[in-house]
Formats: sequence, C-alpha cells, structure tokens
Amino acid sequence: MSVFSAFDYQMMSRAIALAKRGVYTTTPNPNVGCVLAKAGQVVGEGYHVQAGGPHAEVHALRQAGAQAKGATAYVTLEPCSHYGRTPPCAEGLIQAGVAKVICAMQDPNPQVAGRGIAMLQAAGIEVLTGLMETDAVALNPAFLKRMKTGMPWVQLKMAASLDGQTALANGVSQWITSPQARTDVQKFRAKASAILSTSQTVIADDAALTVRRHALPESVCQVYPVADIRQPVRVILDQHHRLHDGLKLYDGAGAVLTVGQDKADICVALDASGKLDLRSLLRQLADKHQVNHLWVEAGATLSQALLSQQLVDEIILYLAPKLMGSDGRGLFGRFGFESMQDVFQLEISDVVRVGSDIRMTVIPQYHSPK
Amino acid sequence: MSVFSAFDYQMMSRAIALAKRGVYTTTPNPNVGCVLAKAGQVVGEGYHVQAGGPHAEVHALRQAGAQAKGATAYVTLEPCSHYGRTPPCAEGLIQAGVAKVICAMQDPNPQVAGRGIAMLQAAGIEVLTGLMETDAVALNPAFLKRMKTGMPWVQLKMAASLDGQTALANGVSQWITSPQARTDVQKFRAKASAILSTSQTVIADDAALTVRRHALPESVCQVYPVADIRQPVRVILDQHHRLHDGLKLYDGAGAVLTVGQDKADICVALDASGKLDLRSLLRQLADKHQVNHLWVEAGATLSQALLSQQLVDEIILYLAPKLMGSDGRGLFGRFGFESMQDVFQLEISDVVRVGSDIRMTVIPQYHSPK
Repeated sequence: MSVFSAFDYQMMSRAIALAKRGVYTTTPNPNVGCVLAKAGQVVGEGYHVQAGGPHAEVHALRQAGAQAKGATAYVTLEPCSHYGRTPPCAEGLIQAGVAKVICAMQDPNPQVAGRGIAMLQAAGIEVLTGLMETDAVALNPAFLKRMKTGMPWVQLKMAASLDGQTALANGVSQWITSPQARTDVQKFRAKASAILSTSQTVIADDAALTVRRHALPESVCQVYPVADIRQPVRVILDQHHRLHDGLKLYDGAGAVLTVGQDKADICVALDASGKLDLRSLLRQLADKHQVNHLWVEAGATLSQALLSQQLVDEIILYLAPKLMGSDGRGLFGRFGFESMQDVFQLEISDVVRVGSDIRMTVIPQYHSPK
Repeated sequence: MSVFSAFDYQMMSRAIALAKRGVYTTTPNPNVGCVLAKAGQVVGEGYHVQAGGPHAEVHALRQAGAQAKGATAYVTLEPCSHYGRTPPCAEGLIQAGVAKVICAMQDPNPQVAGRGIAMLQAAGIEVLTGLMETDAVALNPAFLKRMKTGMPWVQLKMAASLDGQTALANGVSQWITSPQARTDVQKFRAKASAILSTSQTVIADDAALTVRRHALPESVCQVYPVADIRQPVRVILDQHHRLHDGLKLYDGAGAVLTVGQDKADICVALDASGKLDLRSLLRQLADKHQVNHLWVEAGATLSQALLSQQLVDEIILYLAPKLMGSDGRGLFGRFGFESMQDVFQLEISDVVRVGSDIRMTVIPQYHSPK
C-alpha cells in the first residue's frame, strides 16, 4: 500500500500542473511547482517563473503567510539547499514552520541530491519523496539530462514530403509543410534554451530563427505569462565567417552566438573528419551557457552529423501530404548501409495531425553509445 | 424533420453491420445487408455472402418465414429487379407480403437505378430511400466506382523508411516494415478482387501474392465465414514473358492472369510512352473480369505510372521507424517538378499504428482529370 493518500496525489498533480506554466520561461532553471495545504485546504501555491526570480516554494509561502505554519508542502523537486540568486528554499520552509514536505523527486545533481531533504529533516520536518516521480521527471527532460550528463537535451526538427524529400531539385522548399505546422514549430522554439543552425541554412532562407509572439499558437499564449518573449540563444555554425549584418538573424531581439574554429563566440576544434567538433560544442553549450534544451533547425548535413554521433535525443518530424520524387533533396545524404541490421533504428513515440500534415515524435535507438 | 424514426436508424445500422461481414467474399457483387422487422422486433436478417449465393433479402425472408407478411424491410441497397443467377429480390419481397421497404441507397448503375423501387411501388409497397446513405456508400467504394465509371477502384500499397526509402542501395529490402505490418497487408489482399504486380517484383521477391489464412489477423478470421479462402486474381504485367513455372506465384491456389502486348492472358496495346497501356488494362479488368477493388503491390516504376496517369484512388502507406539515407532506393523515380505548385498533392485521411510502424491512408488530389 502506498504511503500517499488520494489527497496527496491531488495536491502533487496540482503542483505539477503549476510547474508546467513555467515551460517557456525558466531556462536554465527547471520547472517547479509547489502547493501548501492544511486541513484539506490549499493555503498557498506557486511555480517558478523565471531564472533570478523567486522559486516555487517562495511564491507558495508568500501566498500562505501565517497559514504555512503546520502545513504540508507538495513540491515537484527537492527544495534547494544552497545560496544562489535566492536563499535556499529548505530554509524558507523551516522558518515558515511547515510540518511536512512531500517531494516528487530528489535533486538530479548526484552531488547535491538529498541535501535539501537532510536540512529539512534536521529541523524536525517529516519528508517523503517519490510521489508522482515519473510525472515530475517528465517536466524537465532537458534540465535533468544536463544535470546528469553535462550535455544538452537535443531535439532535431525535420520536415519532408511523404516520400522523404525536403526540397525540389532546384532547391525550392517553401513551403512543403502547412501554415499550422510552421506555427507549431514556433512552440518548440519558444520552449528551447537555444536554437542550433548553420550559416548555410540561415543565409539560404534569410531565417531569423526567433520566436514571434503573433505566430505562437493560441494555446501557448494562454500559458505564456510574460509580455516580453524570452528569445532562445541562436547558435550558428559559421566556420567560414559567412554571416553578415544584413541578415534577418541580426534584426530583432535575442542573442546570436557564432561557432567556428577561431574568431567566433564559441571556438571548437575540428574533429577527425575535419568538421567542427559537435560533441565539444554541445558540452560547451551545457557548461558555459547552461543550455538545457537545444532545438536544431538545420539542413541534411548537420542533422545527419548529429544523428551519426548519437547526439540527438528526439526527432520532431513533420510529414506533409505531398510527393516530390527522388530527384528532390532527401532528408539525409548517403549513409552507406549494406545490411538492414545497420540502418538507423528509431521508435515512434507520438503521431498527431497538425493542419494537413502529421507530426511524429521519434526517438533514436542507439545500439552502443560511442 | 427526418421521416425516419430512431428505430429505423437502429435497424439500418444493423443491416449495415451485417453487410460488412461479406467484405472478404462478395466480389464482384456488392456488400449488402437486410433486416426485416415487425412491431418493433427483428423477424429476419441476413447478408450477401458470395456471388452466386442468395442475396441478403433472401436470407432475411427465409429466416422470417410467414412473419415477413406486413414487416418492414431495411436494405442497404435498392433490391434488384433483374433475373441474374438468382431471381429478383424485389419480387421476393412482394411475394412475402412485406408492407414497407426502406433502402439506404438506389442501385448505383444509372441505367437500372429505381427499377427495383418501381417494381415494389407497383405492387403497392411503400418505399423510402436515403436512410444512412453515406454509410451505405462507404460499404462499397470499389463496386460503386466500377458501376459508375467502368473502372476498378485502385488501392496502391507502398512501404518505406521514415526518410522515404524502400530498399538499400544493394536492393536489400527485407524487412523494412514490422511483422505486424506485413500481416496487415494480408487483410487488404483478402479484401481485393485482384492484385496487380509486375514480373520484375514477382521474380525479385519470388512473391506468391496470395492470401494466407494463417497470416490473416485474428480480427479478420473472426468475420471471414468461409473455410475456403477466396484468392484474388493475380494480374502480373509481363511484357517480356519472364514469368516461369518455377515461381511461387504458380504454387498455390488462385488464378494468375498475365498482361502483355501479345501471348498473354490480357493483351493491351502500348501507350504513347511505349509502355503497356494501364488505363486500357484497368478498363478490361473492370469490364471482362468484374474487378471492383484492385490492390497494387509493385515497385516504384508501376506505382509512379499509375499515379501519374491519375489511376490511383487511395494509397496505403506503411512507414517504418528507420532511417536509410538517400543512397537507398526511393519510393518513386524522378518527377522533374520545378515548382511547389507542380508536386503531387495528397490528403491524409487516416493514420494508425501497426506494430512499430504507422499506416497512413492517403488520397491523391488530382487537379484536372486527364
């Protein structure tokens, strides 16, 4: 029998729903929600909105005021124990006099996991963990991956006709997908910490790669609480210094980081094949730029390189109901496979309709991590 | 307000459900169901099982016996008025003394539509039509197309990796799709009047192209009432007389019809491009062989030719979660499109998961019939 009551589940579900409201804004911090309940009533609740701003627990404690005394706190993540831009939440909960803390999961960083819990327990507060842990983990796939591995969580966007073509032989690709699919892409950009592309793609399409408020789906606007859109950092591979000021890339808001061997915002060495070392780039993005969720919109070459190096966590594939013929440009270049055992294995985790197109969420099945 | 009562809808739904039980066996006849009801009770029901056997009305009348007198007959298709292999059903209903006949739709053949109804009305029976007509039409897309246009309804099977490849560069294609998808294909074969392929495909795969009872999905076995499987006629393009007795094609049960310019079971002329004239072949299959539903399993060349000549009604596309690279073999050859306005437009009418793959039902959107 579970140690948690139906009421506990109800409160944690509420905390998880609150946490989700921060999905577009908290990076590099995780999404966290908190509910304070006493005698079967919610007395305070909140969620983390933006890095630098109050944590979820602080919002909930402020709302509860004196009612926090003797309450149970439901938190989607172990309360923090360190002094960062804000004082530790464990301390706040202790000072407010909460009687009990239920966490969905421990801190993902193995080096600090359990410290917040220990601080609470040392103050005589009862602490339970693991309530709805799977749901709590699903709140922060990207943050959790960075904490555990030091690498960003990489989502690769691809779009093609039903026969796998991304452009006609003459390079024309506007538009293969429906307006609804292009709007849907805005949602993924808005969630990302950073967007990765190449100078080739940016120049060919004169792409801004920004989040456009008016282009966001209505469903997003309803939960996106800041008037000021957070622009993901745009990270552009530009080994040969081809980016120039005339591009839309430099028009609007949001930072651009160029990547090259030298004279770039991020310098990375070449790998054995003479290309910019992508693994090293991703590690730098995680370490120095705190990039949790990297959204990739690029051409066949970069997409294939990321997949081949097993750096992609999820492919978001839009397929449009068109046939373009094999004289078009394919999703990838040559792979050189000689047996069915060699081909890239994937798993389709989700298929939905988006306008006249479909969108598939596809998970690469890497056999042996390199 | 509708002239039909809730009870009428209930009875016609039952007749439609009965009609569906004939889906694997009635070709070249349509699927038809019939329910006889009196004083709010079903007194007899039946469906057409096999060409040459009794029509739906006959089964229902036999079951009802004397109770048919004064009953209302619900029939998914206008009762026939001609002497074929069985006497006209309109006459049977008159002789049994039914009081009222409700048909979902008229006979699709414009030259005989209304004659069965007229025969019933002349005998003093009240006749209503149009109840659940859309559902009744959906029972028999292939039969209805042949009746109206003299052409078979063509369903094109295709299968590829997510990046649109049907084989590796070396030709290896076994297996791209999952065992469940290959079982699913058996269901479509079982429904078809005929299967179209080419000697090239048959020889390369040593394909039998038969329906295998043990390979049919369980859901099919439950409704397929004959122990003796109906084998669709296999129609093989073989212009250069390459088929030979050693092939599995000739192993089992079921007829094979070869197609060529000469010395073939079906002779067709060459078209302007020097290929066997597909439109003429299809017309012959409809006229002389009463093929309603033609299921095509072939390579890129025939598939592309059928699509280009606007002969395909529906594409059944299996996509497997694999990536094979553009050095594989594509779903189609070159189309030579130079603008996005030119590409083949489709409509995705259905997407389902089949094992680890997805199956899409895709409808070509032809701009101007040629």
